[in-house]
Amino acid sequence: MEVYAIVGLGYVGLGLATALAKEAKVYGYDINKTRIRDLKNSKDTNNLITTDELLQSKLNLTSELEDIKQATFYIVCVSTPAYCYETPDLEPLISSVKDLAQVIKKGDVIVFESTVYPGTTEEICKPILEEISQLQCGKDFNIGYSPERISPGDEQHTLKNVTKIIAAQNRDTLNKLKETYSLICDKVYPVSNIKTAEAVKILENTQRDVNIAFMNEFTKIMHAMDLDVHEIIAGAETKWSFVKFKPGFVGGHCISIDPHYLAFKAKRLGLTSDLILTARKINDNMTHFVIESMLKLLIQHQINTVDMKVGILGVTYKENVNDTRNSLALKLIKDLKPYHINYCVHDPLDHAHHPLKIPLTPLEDMKNLTVAIIAVGHDYYKKMGLDKMLAQCGNPRVLIDIQGIFREEAASKSDLIYWKL
Amino acid sequence: MEVYAIVGLGYVGLGLATALAKEAKVYGYDINKTRIRDLKNSKDTNNLITTDELLQSKLNLTSELEDIKQATFYIVCVSTPAYCYETPDLEPLISSVKDLAQVIKKGDVIVFESTVYPGTTEEICKPILEEISQLQCGKDFNIGYSPERISPGDEQHTLKNVTKIIAAQNRDTLNKLKETYSLICDKVYPVSNIKTAEAVKILENTQRDVNIAFMNEFTKIMHAMDLDVHEIIAGAETKWSFVKFKPGFVGGHCISIDPHYLAFKAKRLGLTSDLILTARKINDNMTHFVIESMLKLLIQHQINTVDMKVGILGVTYKENVNDTRNSLALKLIKDLKPYHINYCVHDPLDHAHHPLKIPLTPLEDMKNLTVAIIAVGHDYYKKMGLDKMLAQCGNPRVLIDIQGIFREEAASKSDLIYWKL
Repeated sequence: MEVYAIVGLGYVGLGLATALAKEAKVYGYDINKTRIRDLKNSKDTNNLITTDELLQSKLNLTSELEDIKQATFYIVCVSTPAYCYETPDLEPLISSVKDLAQVIKKGDVIVFESTVYPGTTEEICKPILEEISQLQCGKDFNIGYSPERISPGDEQHTLKNVTKIIAAQNRDTLNKLKETYSLICDKVYPVSNIKTAEAVKILENTQRDVNIAFMNEFTKIMHAMDLDVHEIIAGAETKWSFVKFKPGFVGGHCISIDPHYLAFKAKRLGLTSDLILTARKINDNMTHFVIESMLKLLIQHQINTVDMKVGILGVTYKENVNDTRNSLALKLIKDLKPYHINYCVHDPLDHAHHPLKIPLTPLEDMKNLTVAIIAVGHDYYKKMGLDKMLAQCGNPRVLIDIQGIFREEAASKSDLIYWKL
Repeated sequence: MEVYAIVGLGYVGLGLATALAKEAKVYGYDINKTRIRDLKNSKDTNNLITTDELLQSKLNLTSELEDIKQATFYIVCVSTPAYCYETPDLEPLISSVKDLAQVIKKGDVIVFESTVYPGTTEEICKPILEEISQLQCGKDFNIGYSPERISPGDEQHTLKNVTKIIAAQNRDTLNKLKETYSLICDKVYPVSNIKTAEAVKILENTQRDVNIAFMNEFTKIMHAMDLDVHEIIAGAETKWSFVKFKPGFVGGHCISIDPHYLAFKAKRLGLTSDLILTARKINDNMTHFVIESMLKLLIQHQINTVDMKVGILGVTYKENVNDTRNSLALKLIKDLKPYHINYCVHDPLDHAHHPLKIPLTPLEDMKNLTVAIIAVGHDYYKKMGLDKMLAQCGNPRVLIDIQGIFREEAASKSDLIYWKL
């Protein structure tokens, strides 16, 4: 029986490690000592794994590289961010590969789950592993790739029930991946090589980005014609071939990053990625469209903008998830700064990652707002209902409801100036 | 009971007219006298309505404007092409509106089915109708819009079973549309105004164009990495949120035209359509990618290109449909011309529209081909099978199979240089 080590215990790694620890001996390794201390205290600050689950788990938590030497099967789940939103930042991945190279032995298998551009595993990770370990890949040790498909906050699609793509450099290793992932996933799906598996993941995420960008571009045109894009989408949905995507903010550590990985690889191959990069630009610029629309409403309705105050409701990258990485709500705050507008920020969730260190204000302390912007449509706001939410934050004249969570309730409120995408 | 007149008996109008003629008195009007003569002889050169159906139909065919004066309900189904693939060419629509304006009376309803940019019906068609008829729209006569959703060659999705979007300028007229379309469609779906109905149609078609463009851009990157995009798509399909689109040629009178209508309107509103136009450009340029890939193979494999001969198999805009409007197969032939390559062209179907007047060669007369390009994956070729097809056209060394219809059969043929998207 294999002994496993999961390298990187973030959103992806912790879920995988706890699931696998029910079936086998598993080490959970992270270089972040605070993370390991929290997890040892049965506290997942990402709120994905419950305290009960952690209490019951047989997972061996450690931040000591030495401890994972006993493993025979390593799964790397470190995050692959981008510098300034654009160039792949492989540093966290490379750094973990360098660590791993010091502990792997003959016969070991190393599988990568991090989202990367096709070629990364074999062209970047493999040579580092070989050079530092002085072992030969394909002979002394073997590598594989299996893209993570975690959808945070989505209870319908889980590690267990979503098909797991697997690939390896040879048939024996592929069989080992098959055995391992079959322990925790209902269905595994082998593809013919590692690059193909890498490409599958980047295709999925880039397709989503492009589709939302198209809906955003379309929405801007419909706004200029005073048409309700949500009604248009509902109509289009009655055609068999239409695919429902909604306009909105695209942030987070996947969809807003992965297309840059693909475009980066394309550029190195001498190709352009005009559509992919145009989509990225449109999605990133949606904050400016929101601000422009807000200012248009203020001027149109002759609302006094002197000493105006804006409340931003929601700062995470998506609803009901406490992750703020590459959140467009945070970018909205940043883009508002040059206006020197007074603002305050609310979010009902704890924040595991919060790079901008913005202080949060309780909703009921948001007095005298000129404008409330619901930047993230958390269920918390929906459950509160429009009237209570408005009352709590001092009944602003203008409500910018980016995702349109209150579009039905707002229709009957003639005194409210209401805007949605 | 209403008396109907269908204006324009092309792909959309003829199907609508024959369906409606089973339920009510219907005039089928087209300015093209040849078309009316053919139809009176029970021959639909588009091959959509069978001779039997035409023989049994009570449809009153005419090219005399005078004849349709008896109608009370007009449905305009003329095509809306583009000049040089880019600017909307509303001439056919405007011309039919000018004709109609001479025959409409008080109480009449005029419904448009032609795909247009949002605003066309009310901003272009309505003023012409009012000016020439000297009647007032909304008082003397009323207008509506119901986008056609015909999918030529698709037996699963029919006029009857696909939901029919309807919109009108007032409730009474909307009810008349509801009654009319309920005679022939299982489900009607009213939207709140005409512009919204226009936008629904243009959204559907532009979404498809953008998605295929993304797959085309992605495919080019995968080709540069020697990866099989079809395997990658199959892998991605195992994720719940992935939407299956394939790379390929986008032509025809809808998908390759409608995005330009939307972009044109956007430009008039002072907006850019970067994503939409980038998608168009990528899809239109796929012919160059195919030619470049073909030449690369010839050079790589040291095949003699002196006096080379290329056979193009399929010229229609899509498989199993005899329509060549904006066919990328025809564009491929055009783009090959500067190379001064000998070529011959085959297509198993009759061609209703064939602007380039290219002579067709029987498959068995395509001797000594250096390269065969299956530009359109007609079932005719699939049924023939790879071996027979190759033998028929003189066993070329290179097969460019754009849609990859023979990718499985080709895998076992080591002597064939095989390429697909």
